[in-house]
Amino acid sequence: MKSGSIRLFGGELRYPIIQAPMAGVSTPALAAAVSNAGGLGSIGVGAETPEGARRMIVATRELTPNAFNVNLFCHRPATRDRELEASWIERLRPEFARFGASPPSELEEIYKSFVVDDAMLDTLVALKPPVVSFHFGLPTARQLAALRGIGSFLIATATSVHEAELLARAGIDAIVAQGYEAGGHRGVFDPKAVDDRLGTIALTRLLVRKFEIPVIAAGGIMDGAGIDAALRLGAVAAQLGTAFIACPESSADAGFRGALASDAALHTVMTSAISGRLARSLANRFTALGQSVAAREIPTYPVAYSAGKALHSAAKEKSEYGYGAQWAGQGAPLARSLPAARLMSVLIEEMAAAAS
Amino acid sequence: MKSGSIRLFGGELRYPIIQAPMAGVSTPALAAAVSNAGGLGSIGVGAETPEGARRMIVATRELTPNAFNVNLFCHRPATRDRELEASWIERLRPEFARFGASPPSELEEIYKSFVVDDAMLDTLVALKPPVVSFHFGLPTARQLAALRGIGSFLIATATSVHEAELLARAGIDAIVAQGYEAGGHRGVFDPKAVDDRLGTIALTRLLVRKFEIPVIAAGGIMDGAGIDAALRLGAVAAQLGTAFIACPESSADAGFRGALASDAALHTVMTSAISGRLARSLANRFTALGQSVAAREIPTYPVAYSAGKALHSAAKEKSEYGYGAQWAGQGAPLARSLPAARLMSVLIEEMAAAAS
Repeated sequence: MKSGSIRLFGGELRYPIIQAPMAGVSTPALAAAVSNAGGLGSIGVGAETPEGARRMIVATRELTPNAFNVNLFCHRPATRDRELEASWIERLRPEFARFGASPPSELEEIYKSFVVDDAMLDTLVALKPPVVSFHFGLPTARQLAALRGIGSFLIATATSVHEAELLARAGIDAIVAQGYEAGGHRGVFDPKAVDDRLGTIALTRLLVRKFEIPVIAAGGIMDGAGIDAALRLGAVAAQLGTAFIACPESSADAGFRGALASDAALHTVMTSAISGRLARSLANRFTALGQSVAAREIPTYPVAYSAGKALHSAAKEKSEYGYGAQWAGQGAPLARSLPAARLMSVLIEEMAAAAS
Repeated sequence: MKSGSIRLFGGELRYPIIQAPMAGVSTPALAAAVSNAGGLGSIGVGAETPEGARRMIVATRELTPNAFNVNLFCHRPATRDRELEASWIERLRPEFARFGASPPSELEEIYKSFVVDDAMLDTLVALKPPVVSFHFGLPTARQLAALRGIGSFLIATATSVHEAELLARAGIDAIVAQGYEAGGHRGVFDPKAVDDRLGTIALTRLLVRKFEIPVIAAGGIMDGAGIDAALRLGAVAAQLGTAFIACPESSADAGFRGALASDAALHTVMTSAISGRLARSLANRFTALGQSVAAREIPTYPVAYSAGKALHSAAKEKSEYGYGAQWAGQGAPLARSLPAARLMSVLIEEMAAAAS
C-alpha cells in the first residue's frame, strides 16, 4: 500500500473515511459527527458569504474538538452573456408556469468564486481551519501561501492525470480522485475541455502510480467494502458523499430523502441544466429537461443555478420535488438512513469484515 | 467476502483472474497461456463462423489442459435500413477518398447473432467448452438448456441491476459486472434503452448486495491492486481485457500496440461510429469522426462495422492506423507489454502485495 496519509494536528486521521463537503446538504452537525467518530467531516462553504462561512466553521468547531474540512469552489468567475441568459429564462418560463410562478427577470451570479474572494480568505486565515479543500481547480498562489501559512492541510480534486499534475505542481497535500460515478458537481477545471470521464478505479490507480502525493478515492463508494477496495487501490482514504445524505444531520429535504430511498435512486444523470456545470443528480424532472437542451443553451455556472434554485422553490411550493438539485452518485441505492455516528460505526465494522 | 466461486471441472479457478474475450484481439495462444497460469483464458468467437469457432476451440484445447471460456454475441439480429446505410456510405466516402479508396457499395451483416445461429450451437454442443459466456444479452432458453446439458459453466454480462435480474432469472452461473470504464463493446442488452453508465465499483456493489450469483468485476482493472480491490468489493474474480492487449500472444496490430504504449492511451471514448454499437476505443481518427455524427445516422450493429472495418483496411494500407477499432478501457495507460504467462505472475504477485 502507498505510504503517506492525512496528517492532522500532528496526528493522523483515525479512520480513512472522509465525508464529502456537499454544499447545501452537509451541515456543521454532520461534519462534527463524522469527525467525532474518527473520520474527517467536511462543510461546503462555496455557496456561502464569508460571514456564512464563519458561522459554519464556528458552529462545527463548537461541536467537535477534532479536525474537519472546509471546502471552497475555485471555478473561473462567471463571464456573463445577457442574451443567452434571457433565452434561458424564456426556456424555463413554461416550467415555472406549471406551478403558477414566473422565472426571475434576471439571473444572478449567486456566489463568488474563492479565487476572487479576499474576504473569504481573510475569514479562513482568522479561523485557521485544520483542513481546506478546493473544487473546480485551485485558488491563486497567494491564497495557497496564506492557507499554508496558517497550517491548513490542503486537499484538491482532480478528475484526470492532467489536473493532478497541476495540483502536484502547486504543492497540494492530497488529491481527491473524483471518479465519473461521483454525485454532485464534477470537479473538472475547464468545463470546455474534453472529459475522459474516468471511473474511480482507473483514476485512482493512474494517480497512485504516477504521483507521490496521497490520493483520496471518491465516486461510487457507499460502504465498508468500497472503502476497503479504495485502500487496496492505494488510496489513503475514501471520500463518501451520497452515503451521508440520508443521515438526519444532513439538510437534504424530504423530497430528496424520499427519492433517495425509492427506486429513483437506481438512475443518476450528469446534467449542466441545473447549475450551469455538469453535476450528477438523481434522474428527475430537471435532469429530463436537461436532456432536451444543448449545453450551449445553458448559462454559465453558477448563473444558471439562480434559475435552477428558483424553479425548484416554485415547484416545491406546489409539493413537486422533482426540480431539486438531488446530487447523488451511482451508488445511491445503497444509501442508509442512519445517524452519522451510527453510520460511521457500521462503515468501520464493514471495512474490518471486508479486509478479513 | 461473498461466498461462491467459479467451479470448473468440479474444481475451482486457481486465481481470480479472467482474461476478457476481446474478439479480434484474443487468440488461442493468449487464452491458453492465461489458463495454463491458473487464470481463465477466453476466446471470442462472436465474429466467427461455426467452422472458425471450431478451429479456435480446438486450437485452444491443444494448448491447455485447463478450462477456458468461449464468448458469444447475443445481440438482437440486425434490422436493415438500406436508406440509412446508403447515407452512411456517403458520409464515409470522403474518409475513404483520403486513402485513395472507395467505400463498399453495400454494407453487410458481417456476422450472425448467436441467438439465430443453430450451426454455432451444434459446434459448441459437439466440442463441449467448459465455460461459455454471452455479451449483449442472452441466448434463447433452448440454447441455454443445450449448453447446460453439456455441462458448460455459463457467464453473461450485465451493465445494470435490471440486466442482472434477467440473468438471474435465466439461471446464469456468474455475472460479469461490466463498468462504464471497460474497453470494447458495452454489453447493454437494448442499445436504445437509457444507460446509467454505472462504474465498476458501484455496479459490482449493487449486484453483489442484491444477488446470490457470483459476480465478476470488469472495467478499469489493470493490475493486482485492482484485482484485489475487486475481491474486496465482493466479486469472485476480476475480468481484465486491456491489460492483455499488449501481450505478444494477442493479435493486436502494430498501430494499436503503438497507440497503447503512447500518451494516446490517456484518452478513451465511447463511440458507436465504428461498429454500430457503443464501444470504448482509444481516442483516434475514427472516434473523432464519431463525435461529429448523431447516433441516428449510424447503421445498426454489426452492419456499420462492415464499413468501419473496410475504412480501417484502406487507411492501414497507407500506414494510417487511426481508423482501427482500438478497443481499450480507461486503465489503458497501465497496459504492459509482457508475455501472458509473465503478466499473470506479475498480477498474482501484485495481488498478494496489495492484500498484505
